[in-house]
Amino acid sequence: MAELHPACAPLAFLLGTWQGTGTGVYPTIEDFSYAEEVSFAHVGKPFVAYAQKTKDSGTGLPLHAEAGYLRPQGDGRIELVLVQPSGIAEVLEGTVEDCDIRLASTAVLGTPSAKPVTATERRFWVDGEVLRSSVAMAAMGLELQHHVVSEMYRLS
Amino acid sequence: MAELHPACAPLAFLLGTWQGTGTGVYPTIEDFSYAEEVSFAHVGKPFVAYAQKTKDSGTGLPLHAEAGYLRPQGDGRIELVLVQPSGIAEVLEGTVEDCDIRLASTAVLGTPSAKPVTATERRFWVDGEVLRSSVAMAAMGLELQHHVVSEMYRLS
Repeated sequence: MAELHPACAPLAFLLGTWQGTGTGVYPTIEDFSYAEEVSFAHVGKPFVAYAQKTKDSGTGLPLHAEAGYLRPQGDGRIELVLVQPSGIAEVLEGTVEDCDIRLASTAVLGTPSAKPVTATERRFWVDGEVLRSSVAMAAMGLELQHHVVSEMYRLS
Repeated sequence: MAELHPACAPLAFLLGTWQGTGTGVYPTIEDFSYAEEVSFAHVGKPFVAYAQKTKDSGTGLPLHAEAGYLRPQGDGRIELVLVQPSGIAEVLEGTVEDCDIRLASTAVLGTPSAKPVTATERRFWVDGEVLRSSVAMAAMGLELQHHVVSEMYRLS
């Protein structure tokens, strides 16, 4: 294992694999619940790789996935680049403070076949043994609003 | 294992994990060589997840990484969303034909701290037992030009 890059120290609380469950809502779709697994990994360089997968809680079939890289910038500032298999690529900026990462998109790109997403806000925060993750999203012409929230526990 | 989604049939030749070596050039940096591993995976949905890592051939230290999702669109058209830990997010469009994927960026986003990349062209093609991967890049104010090429063999 490589030693953690000093720039990544504010993200050390995230490192590892976490599993749990979440719920989702959006005006254009039915409410849903899901099982989630996320991992945050480093290779000794000044970024943390993020990967996420969700499954339908009932059927076990895959639902969502996303992958990205967190880039700490010092002074509690942080950047995230993120892609989703729905054809969305996001650039986000925000802060990390006291095991709480808050990010807002500065740009969202979609492939020609992607559903229109114009903005997101994302939060990852650890409270005791629990990692919580939430996403707010402006999509399908609607304004930015709560979309999903989950609770996960450390697997490794 | 989920059954491959019919839309992904033109990408079946890529599925699995591949390892090999490559070389890189760019006017702003020293020539370099690297060891590479890429994986293409599916979960039964109409996309293929792509992940890549490279290491310095001499020291074994990590160099580059990227992650993305290939989205076949029918009629040989294909989309790719891609992120790199250097803070770059790309949307690419192109074609897949006869085990040869050719993509060109339609948009490249960077975080505030990312080096300026304005366009890329990417190719993945299988010839016999060999997967080749190449990237051309317009970066640091220079025009689009060859950057890296690699040869890999199937690991699984």
